[in-house]
Formats: sequence, structure tokens, C-alpha cells
Amino acid sequence: MNKQTTSKDLLLPKVTTGPLPASRKVYRTPAGRDDIRVPVREIKVSEGTPEETYIPVYDSSGPYTDPDAKIDVEAGLAKLRDAWIDARGTTETYDGRDVKPEDNGNIQETATTRDFPNKHRPRRGRDGAMVTQLEFARAGIITEEMIFAAERENLGRKTALETAKDTIADGESFGAAIPDFVTPEFVRDEIAKGRAVLPANINHGELEPMVIGRNFLVKINANIGNSAVTSSIEEEVEKMVWAIRWGGDTVMDLSTGRNIHRTREWILRNAPVPIGTVPIYQALEKVGGDPVKLTWEIYRDTLIEQCEQGVDYFTIHAGVRLPFVPLTAKRVTGIVSRGGSIMAKWCLAHHRESFLYEHFADICDLMRQYDVSFSLGDGLRPGSIADANDEAQFAELETLGELTKIAWDKGCQVIIEGPGHVPMHKIKANMDKQLKACGEAPFYTLGPLTTDIAPGYDHITSGIGAAMIGWFGTAMLCYVTPKEHLGLPNRDDVKTGVITYKIAAHAADLAKGHPAAQLRDDALSQARFEFRWQDQFNLSLDPDTAKNFHDETLPKDAHKVAHFCSMCGPKFCSMKITQDVRDYAAKLNEQQAGMDQMSEKFKEMGGEVYVEADE
Amino acid sequence: MNKQTTSKDLLLPKVTTGPLPASRKVYRTPAGRDDIRVPVREIKVSEGTPEETYIPVYDSSGPYTDPDAKIDVEAGLAKLRDAWIDARGTTETYDGRDVKPEDNGNIQETATTRDFPNKHRPRRGRDGAMVTQLEFARAGIITEEMIFAAERENLGRKTALETAKDTIADGESFGAAIPDFVTPEFVRDEIAKGRAVLPANINHGELEPMVIGRNFLVKINANIGNSAVTSSIEEEVEKMVWAIRWGGDTVMDLSTGRNIHRTREWILRNAPVPIGTVPIYQALEKVGGDPVKLTWEIYRDTLIEQCEQGVDYFTIHAGVRLPFVPLTAKRVTGIVSRGGSIMAKWCLAHHRESFLYEHFADICDLMRQYDVSFSLGDGLRPGSIADANDEAQFAELETLGELTKIAWDKGCQVIIEGPGHVPMHKIKANMDKQLKACGEAPFYTLGPLTTDIAPGYDHITSGIGAAMIGWFGTAMLCYVTPKEHLGLPNRDDVKTGVITYKIAAHAADLAKGHPAAQLRDDALSQARFEFRWQDQFNLSLDPDTAKNFHDETLPKDAHKVAHFCSMCGPKFCSMKITQDVRDYAAKLNEQQAGMDQMSEKFKEMGGEVYVEADE
Repeated sequence: MNKQTTSKDLLLPKVTTGPLPASRKVYRTPAGRDDIRVPVREIKVSEGTPEETYIPVYDSSGPYTDPDAKIDVEAGLAKLRDAWIDARGTTETYDGRDVKPEDNGNIQETATTRDFPNKHRPRRGRDGAMVTQLEFARAGIITEEMIFAAERENLGRKTALETAKDTIADGESFGAAIPDFVTPEFVRDEIAKGRAVLPANINHGELEPMVIGRNFLVKINANIGNSAVTSSIEEEVEKMVWAIRWGGDTVMDLSTGRNIHRTREWILRNAPVPIGTVPIYQALEKVGGDPVKLTWEIYRDTLIEQCEQGVDYFTIHAGVRLPFVPLTAKRVTGIVSRGGSIMAKWCLAHHRESFLYEHFADICDLMRQYDVSFSLGDGLRPGSIADANDEAQFAELETLGELTKIAWDKGCQVIIEGPGHVPMHKIKANMDKQLKACGEAPFYTLGPLTTDIAPGYDHITSGIGAAMIGWFGTAMLCYVTPKEHLGLPNRDDVKTGVITYKIAAHAADLAKGHPAAQLRDDALSQARFEFRWQDQFNLSLDPDTAKNFHDETLPKDAHKVAHFCSMCGPKFCSMKITQDVRDYAAKLNEQQAGMDQMSEKFKEMGGEVYVEADE
Repeated sequence: MNKQTTSKDLLLPKVTTGPLPASRKVYRTPAGRDDIRVPVREIKVSEGTPEETYIPVYDSSGPYTDPDAKIDVEAGLAKLRDAWIDARGTTETYDGRDVKPEDNGNIQETATTRDFPNKHRPRRGRDGAMVTQLEFARAGIITEEMIFAAERENLGRKTALETAKDTIADGESFGAAIPDFVTPEFVRDEIAKGRAVLPANINHGELEPMVIGRNFLVKINANIGNSAVTSSIEEEVEKMVWAIRWGGDTVMDLSTGRNIHRTREWILRNAPVPIGTVPIYQALEKVGGDPVKLTWEIYRDTLIEQCEQGVDYFTIHAGVRLPFVPLTAKRVTGIVSRGGSIMAKWCLAHHRESFLYEHFADICDLMRQYDVSFSLGDGLRPGSIADANDEAQFAELETLGELTKIAWDKGCQVIIEGPGHVPMHKIKANMDKQLKACGEAPFYTLGPLTTDIAPGYDHITSGIGAAMIGWFGTAMLCYVTPKEHLGLPNRDDVKTGVITYKIAAHAADLAKGHPAAQLRDDALSQARFEFRWQDQFNLSLDPDTAKNFHDETLPKDAHKVAHFCSMCGPKFCSMKITQDVRDYAAKLNEQQAGMDQMSEKFKEMGGEVYVEADE
């Protein structure tokens, strides 16, 4: 991989480009739509042998892994969706809101925090015209975004069904309805029912569309963003590119410090994945950090600002209602959601119902115009094992169900956020209640963490819960990094979080009985069994780490073709013995010979179990 | 922590000593038995405040964390059990088997691989006398080992039941019967029923006894051991000490290279935890690595060698029967267990039933004399998702059930080993079948790994499965390190594996409804909520890592008392807001005032949400 460098090094974020090991990017064109090019990563296996082949895997990484793509972070990515949106004729461009000094915390441009150079002219829905994917879906219209997303989901399914029938799809899906093939019509139907979301702001033309829902591959989100204490724009753009390189399906920019508007613009213009935000964070910055001073007007202005920029989904904590706040008083960890605590403080100080709740219909009208999806925030999620599944949490969840129906009526897409800290035996109740209360709108959970006692390892405490709730039906898993509770994740933490959550999501796909999920497991295990070390590395979620770990004990190139590993050494190897067993069983069948004869013959053959590597 | 150094540095393993942060080791004496001292680690919280207190946690680390203990690896640990065993009068010492050159791969002593200096005179059961914990348990006799193990299990239960009734024990235990308090009689009864094992070779006097069973805390095992390719005795002894420092309950020495006898002797003489081995590995070394040349006599001689040394449990793959071997031929990854593949090869080459199966009763008679516990190996466990829960695997499990009954009849203790690679939806079937087939003998599983696609992260792929199967009833979880499939774990990998598995085991204890498991979660979450950073670090499974991660972004000492963290910064903090909410709710109750009045008052108070740290 290469770090992009230019003469404007100080001004431009450096991002990681280049393909992953042994991988090529190909573009598939859905039937009848040559203009739509859907990226797929293909991993070459058995290089140089007659069995050379490619394993297709889902590719969230965007043009950054395409060696033919010209990456210029100052220009941003190509806006492939603009032509589709124009062709529909339901939107208009207009003079957007002016960027105000407070949008960036009243900070001037500097060498490293300057504005994105190309200001785009925003687009919004024309009066009365359909704008959102939900509106099109309900009208029976299949959009280009749906065609694109459908094609992405189908990787390997054909092969799976044709060639590997015996290893497939014996999962337990808990009532999900995963199809053998995903058609554009299936995507449309799931969106129309509210069971899936396709987050795609009409001002985010750079997006490669994807779909989130229980009947699709389990997705993962990576959080990035600076805070008042640490981190720069440059770091955040690279974190976004880095997160999607390793498999992040969406990215949330949770910046809370200064330069919020500027940071987000650089991220959006270079993001091929949906970008989510929590608008109340920026609104709070605009009132000097005092929740009590928040107003509907300031919040609304912030929504417009971010809608025009192209944010694809907003976390909105409209379920934190005044009467629920006292329910948290006896908790071990009270309210741990930032958005939830801001709104709780506002409600108490003013002794009024939440302005987010009271203005919810207005928020819908606004977001619909840009097709920004709701991610209804769980502001009262439990922050500790002790507080899991309590009255406050479930009261809010019921409210999110009410709000879902309002948003749907207004034509808006909705996902529902979930906990948090939950011990294993209380996880399934969360999924069951969410499906019921929220009419099967996609669930999007943070972990959950299954114990509180391992700060520094909360990617693992939460990876356990994430895999389980993903299996039970959660559509997207919000990653947790090793730094959770301790600090802001750096680039390494982002990668660890993403890989851990790819594991959880994939384990969930396997357990749900996804028709093709197991193909990659089978290909990797086959490579492992046949001592194709390089294939094993290349097929893994993190080829670099796998190879480095192997090389720590067996560094020589000869060892990459060795029929042994450092666990057992060359003298003894269980995998090798199994090959002997298999050869033996095959001969047995072939010859229909008596077992005694074969035993003799096997001994004559020497019964060798070692193969010395060619050193 | 300190590294023990002496003038004999080249000869002596250096081991890590000293207490963990803010921790002290105390010894509790069970009622009426002042001679029995049971170690407990106590973590100090709220140092220097009126609330200063200690949280007790299970302590597997042995004398190494006791600052008052004199550690001399050349002398080994004190043999606290010898007096108990002598007092029972059922054993005799005798001239043990001579150590033979082939026990160490025909390698002479060198500066770094010399014999342990103090040869001990082995002990065995007298003819017809009771030796095993199972025999004593059945006879209604409570041994000192049972008293010791019972005391260890009870940490915090009294406090839990007295002070925290509302947060306790609402788990789903799937038929386990976890008591409010563990009495020595309860331990005896569980052992008598075969539902628990207390691995304690009478030649391992250094052992601090512990119990493994579904109705006790979930335990974890750490594998160490060198191979023909890599690692030294010195490294392995330190890996053992290091593994138990972080919470390893038992350690298996899986060495396969030379110096096997010598390495094991150094480990055993310095091990306060049960040590397990796979004797067939050493037997194979004795025949030059060729499974076909193995004989019952060589195997039996190896068992005697290891019984006399003091190994507490043996993995024995007696369930790999000749008729099951062809069942593996069509698998994606055949036979991946080393022991399983050795026996499969032997069976096929000789076309005979396994000598382990045929001599099983002889093996029982031998192991009974020393009270070595069986760990019946799953030689046909699945090595990939594709092979999970297949005919070969379950045929072997049924056989392990038969063998369990034979071993019990002979007076031997038994645990059953389990998979391996299993997708989430197939995990519970493993537990259910094991309980049924093996009469509730404790289950001891490797992971299971829930996907094959993440070499380099298999502590995580398997940690997910381990937490789940631990919840379902597995009594001990065998760790998997990040190096699984790629190389031998180094010291860092051992720690990562142990911490990951402590997370899985603790998450399982919480979900099962263990009466006191949540006390540590609650204490840590309380510290987190109150910004007692140092307490949060100290209460965590890995205080060093938690502190280092925090200090990466906020290194100053002032930040250790800061009422904020780097995620949100000082201007805004959700935890702080919640405190305000709580104060507000309290005042509300106190004064019974109308909400409108209070709102005014709160505003007058300033409604401040920030506290600047004293920098």
C-alpha cells in the first residue's frame, strides 16, 4: 500500500491507497445497466497452479484500492450518483446556507485546517416530489441505488448454490427471510416495508450505495472524529479511508471540537460509504458547550447545514423524554450517551418536554427533502451491566417505535440504535423487543459489551455481544475499539475495531445461514489444510497481520511453502497425517481391497509423515 | 513487577514476581482449619478517601505475587499438600522410574537445559487404599483439597448477598445448580457425582487446589510448550508464571521437541496450578516421530514417567477408534488434533483398534494410583466451520461417554474435551450432547472458533464461542492466542489469550447468574462513573494496558483525577451531566417541591456541566 503524497503535503490529508494483497478490484454491471459499475474485490488463490481462481468478497473500500483510480483528496471522489438523481428530475439545486464562523468553533483557516476547496451547490427535493428511497420503493420504483446495492449483496451466491450445496445455509435466522439471490426488486420491497434502509443523501453523490437490513449481510460502522483535546482533520480523513479499507460499511463522524464543519466536508467529499453524524454535538458547540442554551432554531439550522453537506444519516435522540429522565437516577452509571445526557439536562433545566420530541414532525419534513435517514438514538442505553434492560432503556425503545411510525408516514427511512452494556442472557430480549416495538425497522447496536471489567479490551467484550445480537437479527454493528472508555482511537485502534467487528458480522452471517458466507471460510480452511500459506494469509481479514505472525517464528520464504508450521515443526504435523489418512481411505474405496492387505501395503509405502521443506 | 535475577542467571528461569497494581495478597483460613491458607487477591479502591475498601478477586497467581514469599525457582515452591497426603496414610513413596536419555530426546544437559536440581521421590497409592479425590468424595470424606477449593470459590458471595441484593443473580444457567455459598460438602458432593473435578496428582505437592465444574466459576486453561523449531525451558517456565499472573487457572505443557521431561520438571516444581499434558506427544518423540512405531508399552512407560513427575491431568485420545477414522475422509480439514491424527495413523497402519481404547482399563488403574485426572481428548474435533458437528465428531463424543463410565468405575476423575471450529448456531448442540452422553462430567472446550477467516485474531473468533459455550455450561475454556494456526505464542500472546479468556469466562459467569460475579463489574462501573480513573484501571483485568491507553492521550497525573476524558474533553462530558441529573432528582425527592420551582432553582445554580481539571 502507498501513502498518497503531493507537493501540498501540509495541506492535504494523506490517505492509504493500493490494493490489498493478492486482490484485484473488478466492476460488475447489473443486467441491462451498463452504466452502473459495482465494485467487487477478488482474492487470487493457488497462484501459478492449474487451480488458480478468484474468491469474491464484499468491497467497501471505494476507489482507494483501485490502482487505476486517480485519487485527489482536494478534488474529492467522482459523484457517480449525480446523473441518476438528475435523471429522476425530483430535485433542484439552490443557494445553500452560508457557512458561519460558529460552524467551525469560530476558528480561522490554517495551513492544516483550511476549507475544502470546491464548494458544492446543494440539492433538495422539489415541493411535493418523491425524494427518499422509501418513497420510490413504496411507489414501486427501483432506483439505481437499489440496483447497485442488490448487486453488491450477491457475491458468490451463484457459485455457492451451484458448486457447494452440501456446506450451505443450515443456519438459524430467528425469523429473518434471507433470499437465495438478492434482486433489485427484493431490495425495493424490503425498503418499502421499512425493514431495510439505503442511506443516501442526495448531496452525497460520491456514495457507492449499500443496504442495511436483517435480510442482507450484517454491516458494521466505524466511529471516527476528533474532540476538543486531540486529533486533526488530516488524521480523520485517513481514519475514514483506513476504516473502509478493512471493511467498515459506514462511518460516523463524531467530532466534538472545533473545525467540525470543515472536517466533515473533507470526509464527505472523499467518502464512498454512508456518513453518519450526531448533529446535537455540533449544535452544542455553537452554544459554547452549555446544553441549557440549546434551542430548536439552533438545532434546525445545524440539521440544514449537515443535510446540505451530504450527511447520510443522523443520530437523533428524540426518545429521551422528560418523564424518562428520573428513571435513570438510581442507575449505577446514569446516562452515558452524550446526546442522551445533553437532552436530559435540557429537559430538566427547562422542565419541558424535549424539543427533539416536540419538533419530530418538523425534523422529518426537513430530512425527507434530502433523504437523510434517521438513526433514532438510544440516549438512555445502559452504560454498565447493572443497568441493562431497565425501565428507562425500554421506555425509550417504545418511544422510538412511536417515532418510527411518524417518520415512515413522512416518507423517511429509519434505523434504531441499541445498547450498550448487556450481559449475554439479556441480549436476545433487546432484539425481540426492538423488532416488536419498531415494526422491524433495522436495529443498529453498539456492541453490546458483555462485561464491564476489561477496559483496554472492550473490542472483545463487545465483539462477543455483537456477534450474538447480529445473529439474532441486528442489521448493523457499531464497532467498539480497544480505546473505548479510555481515549480516542488512533489509526491502529480503528483497524482493530473494524477487524473485530468484521469477525462478529461474519460469524453472525454464518449462524443466520447466509447462502454464501461460508465460501470464504471453506476456501481459507482448504488453503490451511493444504499448507498454501500465502493463500491462507490472503484470504484472511487481515493478511498483513497473519503473515507477520507466521514470519515471527518461520521467516524464510521457503517456509511459505513448507508442509509444516512452527506449532509442531517439520518432524510431526497433524495436517500431513490427515492427508495420509485421506489418501488411504481413497485407495481403500478404489481397490475394494480387504483392510488387512491395505495395512500391509501402507507399511510397505513407508508410512512417512514428514516432508522436509526445501530450504 | 520485578524480574527475578540471580547469579545463576544463565541456568535459572527468570520469572515475573510482585503484586498487581493496588493489590495485596491475603490468606483466608477456612473455619476450624487454621493450617489451610487460601490466597485471595484484594484490590484497593478509593485510596485515601473515607470509602477506601478492598474488592476480593480470585487469585490463581500463586506465591509469585506475594511480596513476602521467597521465590527460588531452583528449589521450587513449597509442597503444602504433602502434609495432608501424608496424614491420610493411603500412599507410599518408592524408587521411581529412572529418567532415560530418550525422555529428553537423547539430548545432554547444557547450561540452559540442565535437569531440575532436586529430584523428588515419587509417591503412589498403596494397594487397595483410596487415593483419588473421587474415591474420598464417594466415601463421604472431605479432603483438605476440597476445603481449599471451596474457600476460593466464595469470594465476595457474602458481601454480594448482604449488600447488593438487587443487582444479583438473574441469569439463565441452563440447568446448572450454582449454590449461594460453596461449602466443602458441596465440593465433595459435586466431585462424588462426577460433575466436578479437582485435578491434584499426589506428586504435585506444590499445587493450590481448585475445582472445575459447571456449578463453580468458569475456569480457563493456558497452553504453553516448546516445539522442535523454537523456544527454551526458560521461556516456558516464565510463560507458566506469566499465564497464571493474569488469571490462567490451569496450564497445559504441550511441548513436542527435545528436553520434554526436563522442561516439564521445571514447570511442575514451580507450578501452583494444575498442569496438564498430552502424553502421546512425548511417546511419539521416543519413537523418532513415527506414529506407526508407537506401542502400548512405550505409551505406558511415558504415563508412569509423567505420573511420577506430578502431572495433574492427561489428555488421552482414547475415543479415536478405528471405525471412526474413515468418517473424516471427506472433511474439509480432516483430523486437526495432533493426538487424534497420531492415533488415526496408527490405527490405519496396523489396521487395529486403538491401543488407548483397548487398554483403557489399564490406563485407569495406573492413573488412579496417582490421582491423575482424565481429560478425554476430542481427537476428531472439527478444524473448520465446514466440519462442525459432523458424524465423526459426535461418534467420538459418544465413545467418550462410554469411557467416562469406565473411568468413574475405576475411581478416576474425568473431564471431556470439546471443539474446535463451530459456527454460533451449532454451539449449544455440543453442550447438550456432551452433558447427555458423558453423564454431566465437566466439559472443557477449545474456543470454539466461530469463523475461519481471521487468522491473527483467533483469540477473538474463539472468545465469542467460548463465552457462549461457557454460559451454556462448559466448566473450563482452553484459551486460543492470536498466534493460533500461525506460530507458537510468545509471552505477549499468552497474556492476550489469558485476558481474552478471562473476559469470556467472566461474561459466562454473569450470564449464568453467579451470585457474586457482578460485584467487580459494579465496582468498576461505579469508579468509571465517578471519574476515579486509577480505580478503574486497578479493577480491570489488565491495569497496565488500561492505564497506558488512557495516558496515550492524557498523560499528565492531573488527568488521573480529571472529571473528563479524551473522548469528549473537558468542555463536555456525559458522565458529568448525569451526576447533575442525579443531584437534581435527589433534590426533587427531598424537597417535594414542584417541578417548575426546581427548574428555576437549577438555572440559578448555574447549571454548570464542566469541571476543569487541576492542571
